[in-house]
Amino acid sequence: MSQYMDFFARLAHESADRKREFLELGRIAGRFPAATTAENGEIAVWCSNDYLGMGQHPAVLEAMHRAVDEYGAGSGGSRNIGGTHHHHVLLERELADLHGKEEALLFTSGYSANEGSLSVLAGRIDGCEVFSDQGNHASIIDGLRHSGARKHIFRHNDRAHLEELLAAADPDVPKLIVTESVHSMGGDIAPLAELADLAKRYGAVTFLDEVHAVGMYGPQGAGIAAREGLASSFTVIMGTLAKGFGMTGGYVAGPAVLIDAIRAHARSFVFTTALPPSVAAGALAAVRHLRGSEEERRRLTANASLLHGLLRERSLPFLSDQSHIVSALVGDERRAKGMSRLLLERYGIYVQAVDAPSVRVGEEILRIAPSAVHRPEEVREFAAALDTVWTGLDGPRTTAAV
Amino acid sequence: MSQYMDFFARLAHESADRKREFLELGRIAGRFPAATTAENGEIAVWCSNDYLGMGQHPAVLEAMHRAVDEYGAGSGGSRNIGGTHHHHVLLERELADLHGKEEALLFTSGYSANEGSLSVLAGRIDGCEVFSDQGNHASIIDGLRHSGARKHIFRHNDRAHLEELLAAADPDVPKLIVTESVHSMGGDIAPLAELADLAKRYGAVTFLDEVHAVGMYGPQGAGIAAREGLASSFTVIMGTLAKGFGMTGGYVAGPAVLIDAIRAHARSFVFTTALPPSVAAGALAAVRHLRGSEEERRRLTANASLLHGLLRERSLPFLSDQSHIVSALVGDERRAKGMSRLLLERYGIYVQAVDAPSVRVGEEILRIAPSAVHRPEEVREFAAALDTVWTGLDGPRTTAAV
Ligand SMILES: Cc1ncc(COP(=O)(O)O)c(C=O)c1O
Ligand SMILES: Cc1ncc(COP(=O)(O)O)c(C=O)c1O
Repeated sequence: MSQYMDFFARLAHESADRKREFLELGRIAGRFPAATTAENGEIAVWCSNDYLGMGQHPAVLEAMHRAVDEYGAGSGGSRNIGGTHHHHVLLERELADLHGKEEALLFTSGYSANEGSLSVLAGRIDGCEVFSDQGNHASIIDGLRHSGARKHIFRHNDRAHLEELLAAADPDVPKLIVTESVHSMGGDIAPLAELADLAKRYGAVTFLDEVHAVGMYGPQGAGIAAREGLASSFTVIMGTLAKGFGMTGGYVAGPAVLIDAIRAHARSFVFTTALPPSVAAGALAAVRHLRGSEEERRRLTANASLLHGLLRERSLPFLSDQSHIVSALVGDERRAKGMSRLLLERYGIYVQAVDAPSVRVGEEILRIAPSAVHRPEEVREFAAALDTVWTGLDGPRTTAAV
Repeated sequence: MSQYMDFFARLAHESADRKREFLELGRIAGRFPAATTAENGEIAVWCSNDYLGMGQHPAVLEAMHRAVDEYGAGSGGSRNIGGTHHHHVLLERELADLHGKEEALLFTSGYSANEGSLSVLAGRIDGCEVFSDQGNHASIIDGLRHSGARKHIFRHNDRAHLEELLAAADPDVPKLIVTESVHSMGGDIAPLAELADLAKRYGAVTFLDEVHAVGMYGPQGAGIAAREGLASSFTVIMGTLAKGFGMTGGYVAGPAVLIDAIRAHARSFVFTTALPPSVAAGALAAVRHLRGSEEERRRLTANASLLHGLLRERSLPFLSDQSHIVSALVGDERRAKGMSRLLLERYGIYVQAVDAPSVRVGEEILRIAPSAVHRPEEVREFAAALDTVWTGLDGPRTTAAV
C-alpha cells in the first residue's frame, strides 16, 4: 500500500504545475466564431483550428446527418476487420487526387498519421537516417523516436544547416527529410523549393506535414507544396481533416508502394477502430467543397493580412506574417496566461496561451487564429482589445516595424 | 534517384505478402447485422465489434444528430486549446461514475488511450517495472515499449508465473501490472480476483483493459471487474467507446492524481484534436442507455451460449466459451482465408480471418462475433454454414467434447 502512495505522490508532484483547466464550450454550430460558456456567457473564439469555418458548413453537416442515418454511429471495427465503409474508400480516393498522389490512407487523427507512418517509413528501411526540422510537431517527433532510426535535427527552416548534415552523411544510406509546410506554432512557411532541391541532390525521400495548410492554401486547397508547384517533389504529403476541413482524422498521400507498406505495418492504423462513417462523409464533403470554392481561402487571407497590419501599427510583436497563424510573442508564461484570462473576462475573447511543451520556455505565445468567418470589424475589435490587455500587463513591444 | 527506388523497392518487398484487401460495407444503419456490398450484395456481418448494436440505437443516433446541429462537425482544437466541449466533460463524468473512479479521461481511440496512458504511467515513475500479460493488445505493448520501462512478460493469464516474476523482483521498485479482462482474440477472461490479490500482496498498481467488456458485462455494463465486485481493486480501468458502446474513442478511469498526470503528460492526448462533439454525445447516450438496460446484455449472452453449443455439437474447435468472442481455431492462414472467402461468396456471411501479427502463426482463427442483434435462427444458419465450409476445406475438428 505504501508503494501505491509513493507512486501517486510522485506523479502528482510532477504534474501539479501542469494541471490544466480546459475552457468548456457550449452551442457553437452556425454561430462560430461565437460560442457559449457557463462562466463567461457568449464569447468569441480566436484560437480554433476550424480556420475556414467548415465545421459548420451546411454541406458538411448534411453529409454527416445522412451518414448517421445510413451507416449508424461507429464503424464497428478496424479497417481490416469489418470497419471499412464506402466513405472511407471515397475519401481516400479524393485525398489522393487532391494531392496528385497514387494513394492515400486515413488514420484516426493527424497525430496517429504522423506517428504511425513515420514509425514505418523511418523504421522499416535498414539504415535509414532521418533529417528532421527542429520545430517539428510532437507527432512527428514521436513517430521518428518510435522508429528507432538515426536522427539528425536541422535548425528550424535552415536549409544551409540541412545541407551541412546531408553532406556529412554517408551517401549510400537511405535518407528521409521531414518537415512542416506551415509551422504549427510560428506560422512561418518552410522553404520548400530549396528543400526539394536538396532532397533531389542527396537522393532523399521527403515527408511533408501540411496539417496547417490543407484546405487553406494552394489550388483547390491542396496545400503549400501545390501552391509552389512542388507537390510532386514531395514523396509523402501528410494532412489532417481536423483543421481546414473542420472535421477530425488524419492522412498520408503518396506512391502506392509506400502507402501499401504503411497500411500493412503502421500499428496506429492496424490496431484501432476505423473512423465513424459520418466523420469520413463529413470530411469528404468538406474536401470537395473546398476544392471548388475559393471564397473561404480569400476571406482567411484577408483577415490574416488585416490582423498582421493592425498588430504592426500597434507594435505588438508576432512571429510571422506568412500565414493565418498569428502568434503574439509574450515570452513569459504567467503574463501570457494573464492576458488570456483578461481577454476572456473583460472582452469575451477566447485565445489560449501556449506554453511548454508546445513552445520553449521563454517563448510563450498567444496563438491567435483569425478564421474565414470572423468579420473584419471583429478583427479590429480583437486587435484593440489585445492592445489594451497588452498594455495592462506590460507586454513587450517591437521597437522598429517588423 | 536510385535511392528512391531502392527505398521503395525494399518497402514493397516487405509488404507484398501483407497487402490487404478490405471488404467495403455499404448501408447498414437500422439493419445491422445486415450490410450491403458492391460484389456480394446483401450480407450478414459476423465480425463487427458493435457487439450490442448500439451503433444503430435510436438514442445514440438522435444524440449525434442533435450534437451535429448544436456544435457542428469537428471540435476545432485539442482539449487544451479550444477543443473542449460540453459533451466531453459530461462523458468523462459519466465514465468515471460508471467505473466508480474519481476521474476519467477521453482519448481519440482505445489505441491512443493505452499507448498514451501507459507511456506515462510506466515511463514517468523512476524505476517502475511492468508485469504484462503475454497476450496483451498491440496498443498496450506499444505504450509500454514507448515508456522505456523494464518489462516482465507473464504467460497468458498464468497467475503462478506472474507471482514468480513479482517475487523475483526488487520489493522496493514501483510495480505496474497490465492485463485485459476479456481477451481480444481468445475471448477468455483473466483471473481477476487472483490478480488483484497478487497486486495487493506485492504493492503493485494495476491497469485493466476492459475494451471487450465495457457495456457487455457487469452491473450497468461496467465490465468484468465490476461483475466480480473488484472494480475498486484495479487502479486504472481502461475502455473503448468503439465496441460495446458502438461509437469511437477510448478512455481511462482512475484516481484523480493519476488521471491528472496522464492529462498533463500523455502525448497522444495533448497533441491531437479532441473527438467531435457528436461522437462524445453519441457515446454518452450509449453509456447512459446501457447503464439502464439489461436487454442487450441478455441477448448477447444468449446468442453467445447458443453458438458455443452449436459449435460443440459439430466438433468445431474454438478457443473459449467464457465470452461473446468466439474464435474458431483454423490454425492455417490460407485455410482460414479460404473459409472466410467461401462463407462470403456462398452464404453472404462476412467473418474475417485473423492472422499474424494479430495472432501467432499457426494460431489463425475466424474471429466470430455474435451480437445482441443477431436472431437465434441466424445463429443456427451461421453454424450450419460454417460447418459445411469447414468440411469443404478440411478444417480441424475436436476429438473430444471441449
Ligand atoms: C504540425 C502538426 N502535425 C500534426 C498535428 C496533429 O493533427 P491532429 O490534430 O489531426 O491529430 C498537429 C496538430 O495537432 C500539428 O500542428
Ligand atoms: C484489448 C484491446 N485494447 C485496445 C484496443 C483498441 O481500441 P480502439 O479500437 O478503440 O482503438 C483494442 C481493439 O482494437 C483491443 O482489442
